[in-house]
Amino acid sequence: MSEFVRTKRSTVIRAPKKACYDRDEIYAVLDEALVSQVGFVADGQPFVTPVNHWRIGDNLYFHGSSAGRRIKIMEAGADLCVSATLLDGLVFARSAMHHGMNFRSVMIFGRARLVEDEGEKLAALKALIEHLAPGRWAEVRPPSAAEMKVTKVLVMPLAEASAKLRSGPPLDDEDDYALSAWAGEVPLRQAFDPPISDPRLPAGVEVPGYLPRDEN
Amino acid sequence: MSEFVRTKRSTVIRAPKKACYDRDEIYAVLDEALVSQVGFVADGQPFVTPVNHWRIGDNLYFHGSSAGRRIKIMEAGADLCVSATLLDGLVFARSAMHHGMNFRSVMIFGRARLVEDEGEKLAALKALIEHLAPGRWAEVRPPSAAEMKVTKVLVMPLAEASAKLRSGPPLDDEDDYALSAWAGEVPLRQAFDPPISDPRLPAGVEVPGYLPRDEN
Repeated sequence: MSEFVRTKRSTVIRAPKKACYDRDEIYAVLDEALVSQVGFVADGQPFVTPVNHWRIGDNLYFHGSSAGRRIKIMEAGADLCVSATLLDGLVFARSAMHHGMNFRSVMIFGRARLVEDEGEKLAALKALIEHLAPGRWAEVRPPSAAEMKVTKVLVMPLAEASAKLRSGPPLDDEDDYALSAWAGEVPLRQAFDPPISDPRLPAGVEVPGYLPRDEN
Repeated sequence: MSEFVRTKRSTVIRAPKKACYDRDEIYAVLDEALVSQVGFVADGQPFVTPVNHWRIGDNLYFHGSSAGRRIKIMEAGADLCVSATLLDGLVFARSAMHHGMNFRSVMIFGRARLVEDEGEKLAALKALIEHLAPGRWAEVRPPSAAEMKVTKVLVMPLAEASAKLRSGPPLDDEDDYALSAWAGEVPLRQAFDPPISDPRLPAGVEVPGYLPRDEN
């Protein structure tokens, strides 16, 4: 277990009891969240856009079209803030103001750089596909030279990060525990429904076992 | 059906076919997403933090502790970018680079102001609780004067917004439809699991019917 060094911008100010700087915990959130939100500044205006991220070791990866504005800004070395949030439940307390959510949320600060080495770039794209469905890469057509040209891959070292975590039942004021309102948690999770085959799929192609599925 | 006026910052540049400026579509995403990500700039650095938002008509609401940094920055009239994303599925194509996701994502630009009128503030907090579970407000202890004092409510007019939407099967290169790899969509949704009662709940308190639940 290793901890991220706390910096001024990465230190959790509000509700420090919920704060966490542990690498393993933060990586677990990043690996489970399929999408994060990348913040950057352009002409003084904040922009926040959803992005499909993936992780290899201590690096976070992104990809996008060479023509995209966000990729250009990220590639130029802009300061970034990446936020990923997993919702684990709604928390119902006996008083209105103690309602809330159970969640795991991470914030990453830093800058990204373009992956220029073709081998590193291809390995990163393979890791993205394998992260979604282990075994998938071997079965699909790999990127063509033209596709590689119009796709950029960016890497952001995971060096400055923090998390906020909440779990468990509501925390009511002591006097309110005598009230008769129901209190507790309604758990939330991301669920996968059964796969829907492409209408153009030839007859006889089976749904592969490597697709993500619910364990429940 | 009315459309948001497109501004320079709200106009979708990449993949304009996925763009949408329709108020009803954008409001549906905001109402379904339990959490959004608020971006702001502090000392030139972008920050992105998760927030529980809710909507009343053409206004988006947030709340937080009076002591919070984000609330202070928002209250001061900083430019904001609010992003909310719903994941609807993973898209598996016959080629690596056409893999993707089905999603509904909105971006809101603007500024927030403090809700100072106590009646408006209480009505907004009630709307938050009722949005999570219609009927809940009447059963819980309302905010005390002290709680109202340490809680701030902010409102952001919904005037500048856009959405990006993707749904349906993968779109492969025509030549790739002959390949034998499985292709299609794995639908994703936010699922509610059965409520967990607070361990301190007195015996005989039933789980109320107004809690959010899965229809499936």
